[in-house]
Amino acid sequence: MNTSAASSAGDPVRAAMETALALGDDVRGATSPNPPVGAVILDADGRVVGTGATQPPPGPHAEVMALREAGERAVGGTAVVTLEPCSHHGRTPPCTRALLDAGVAAVYFAVPDPHPAASGGAEVLRAAGVEVGSGLLAEQVAGGPLRAWLHRERTGRPHVTWKYAASLDGRVAAADGTSRWISGPVSRAEVHAMRERMDAVVVGTGTVLADDPWLTVRRDDGGLAPRQPLRVVVGTRGIPGGARVLDSATETVVFATRDPDEVLAGLAERGIVDVLLEGGPTLAGAFVRANRVDRVVAYVAPSLLGAGPAALGEAGVSTITEAHRWRVEGVTMSGEDVRISAVPVTGEGGD
Amino acid sequence: MNTSAASSAGDPVRAAMETALALGDDVRGATSPNPPVGAVILDADGRVVGTGATQPPPGPHAEVMALREAGERAVGGTAVVTLEPCSHHGRTPPCTRALLDAGVAAVYFAVPDPHPAASGGAEVLRAAGVEVGSGLLAEQVAGGPLRAWLHRERTGRPHVTWKYAASLDGRVAAADGTSRWISGPVSRAEVHAMRERMDAVVVGTGTVLADDPWLTVRRDDGGLAPRQPLRVVVGTRGIPGGARVLDSATETVVFATRDPDEVLAGLAERGIVDVLLEGGPTLAGAFVRANRVDRVVAYVAPSLLGAGPAALGEAGVSTITEAHRWRVEGVTMSGEDVRISAVPVTGEGGD
Ligand SMILES: NC(=O)c1ccc[n+]([C@@H]2O[C@H](COP(=O)([O-])OP(=O)(O)OC[C@H]3O[C@@H](n4cnc5c(N)ncnc54)[C@H](OP(=O)(O)O)[C@@H]3O)[C@@H](O)[C@H]2O)c1
Ligand SMILES: NC(=O)c1ccc[n+]([C@@H]2O[C@H](COP(=O)([O-])OP(=O)(O)OC[C@H]3O[C@@H](n4cnc5c(N)ncnc54)[C@H](OP(=O)(O)O)[C@@H]3O)[C@@H](O)[C@H]2O)c1
Repeated sequence: MNTSAASSAGDPVRAAMETALALGDDVRGATSPNPPVGAVILDADGRVVGTGATQPPPGPHAEVMALREAGERAVGGTAVVTLEPCSHHGRTPPCTRALLDAGVAAVYFAVPDPHPAASGGAEVLRAAGVEVGSGLLAEQVAGGPLRAWLHRERTGRPHVTWKYAASLDGRVAAADGTSRWISGPVSRAEVHAMRERMDAVVVGTGTVLADDPWLTVRRDDGGLAPRQPLRVVVGTRGIPGGARVLDSATETVVFATRDPDEVLAGLAERGIVDVLLEGGPTLAGAFVRANRVDRVVAYVAPSLLGAGPAALGEAGVSTITEAHRWRVEGVTMSGEDVRISAVPVTGEGGD
Repeated sequence: MNTSAASSAGDPVRAAMETALALGDDVRGATSPNPPVGAVILDADGRVVGTGATQPPPGPHAEVMALREAGERAVGGTAVVTLEPCSHHGRTPPCTRALLDAGVAAVYFAVPDPHPAASGGAEVLRAAGVEVGSGLLAEQVAGGPLRAWLHRERTGRPHVTWKYAASLDGRVAAADGTSRWISGPVSRAEVHAMRERMDAVVVGTGTVLADDPWLTVRRDDGGLAPRQPLRVVVGTRGIPGGARVLDSATETVVFATRDPDEVLAGLAERGIVDVLLEGGPTLAGAFVRANRVDRVVAYVAPSLLGAGPAALGEAGVSTITEAHRWRVEGVTMSGEDVRISAVPVTGEGGD
């Protein structure tokens, strides 16, 4: 593989980092609790001789995958990685060791490793005479494939993306509870692609009882995707044994609680890093109130309902000055719908 | 004035039409029941020698204003107008006569005049040996300054833009009714600029009783703008004599009805063409239900409330298949808010 974007023609390291970013993004949802990292090895002439991404645990890290492909051609070459290479023994030997053994002359990474036990990778490499650089595409990596993992490292909690689809007037269903389909086919396909890159998908018992969803990732042909996120149901009521969410397609966990932190602690224990909260309004309200939503992705359809449940239920706001203030991160069209992505103004889910 | 956009360098007629478009847009809100038209006169060498826009009735039409400025230099020149010149005697003599008297050799207009009594302007000019062309920037003109007037010509009703400001979760106020300020300063300034170009601003008695708004156009310094739209209150309850909307800043009409068509007929009688419906949810619901909203402009603020009134009240939809389907016309950032503009899928306010 030899990808080099037009904008980075002539700068092999930048082109390699763009490739590494895409490689890391491709394995989102398959690496937790490890970070979805991408790596590219350039030979001494700047040619791509190896690419790799983090393998599902307990598989190797991205650098090791890329070095394996490069083999002897890594000698005197450059390693380009989205995250600072680790220098500690975990499930795998440290990547700094693999890089030194391979004889690379330079290492560039986007984002420093914030994990106390792992930091020092750059130090170790420098001390061994390797040229080390960092910061290239750091923002894209930190806001992209490593976003959830960095959040988990900082807070100890999984990263929560609350996704919903609503009419322009903010309703997630009509007066009679019907909601298929509020958003268009492009948005629904996007949601399936989003789910596929998540570790877990969370709904409340209310949604299970009302909609009986599968919460699986389906292909265009209706078949199950090979990778499925953990399905999570939250609420004290219990759900019928025949609920679709309990089918054999993949694993499902029920948390008989109404406390978002209990849910997140339980998910963290299972190594879950990246969570998609799919509602409904009551559960979303509980998470927003607890400052446990780290990003919202709203699919706003150009329809008007005038009645029916609102996207967000009680969230602890009684007057306008108490409103949860967010910042729009991106607005795009998704077919005929408007996709708005926003993050809390604190930038940290309210912490 | 000699404006020529970079893209139209070398094409004086196109550049002139861009100027005419802007001139027409500038007089929106000041010309009803006449259309806000812009006109540019080029001399025989393609130089701009006159510009004009429709004057407030009973003032002259755009062509006449531009011809006055051009004087003798119009002879053998070209007139560029956003709307087909009229050929009938109304409050003013026909513009075709003025153009022929001035001796122009060519006339280009963007949009044909749909008004039965007025059509034939192109015919009259052609019959007199003038070169006539049409269609240049027609879409921009028909979707811009002439949009409301064309709608009125087609339907006999004023054009209604429903504007609202809501939180991301679709609320126009918090649980306790407070709503200042849901949207940011940029959006609020935009709304004042929008009001200034409208013939009338409409609210329900509910909004008057809850918010006691002035509904005037104010400058950044808080002072009143020179041009004020008619203020309109709809509802059977009556409003307190001391309501701000009844102050002396400009005229106010109260329609003691709940029927949108009665309101629109009353406004049409007064020569109103372009209406800004500012809510609240109950009145907006009534207009949406009656298919009397021709465009919605939503300012969506990146805040979450989780409680409080929804942007749109009862609009006759009981199940999802009955949803009012719209088409997004434009999405832009307005400061920190997202501005979504949409039109009914029928394109005709549901007719
Ligand atoms: N358009 C969309 O994006 C979308 C997505 C999902 C759902 N929906 C719609 O939402 C509707 C269901 O709404 P819903 O609000 O009932 O569903 P929900 O939020 O999924 O479930 C509500 C339940 O969550 C539990 N819960 C967990 N934490 C809670 C807390 N802190 N406070 C209160 N309850 C908590 C409670 O269950 P227990 O009573 O069992 O404790 C509660 O009854 C359906 O009509 C569905 O179609 C729409
Ligand atoms: N954020 C925004 O963009 C925005 C804009 C405006 C208002 N608001 C908020 O909206 C709230 C007021 O809401 P609202 O719904 O009471 O205000 P509203 O829609 O302005 O007024 C409602 C009243 O309109 C009359 N009405 C006219 N046609 C009707 C029909 N077909 N059916 C029923 N009623 C009709 C009724 O008055 P009668 O009973 O007198 O007949 C009704 O009570 C306030 O909190 C205000 O802050 C927000």
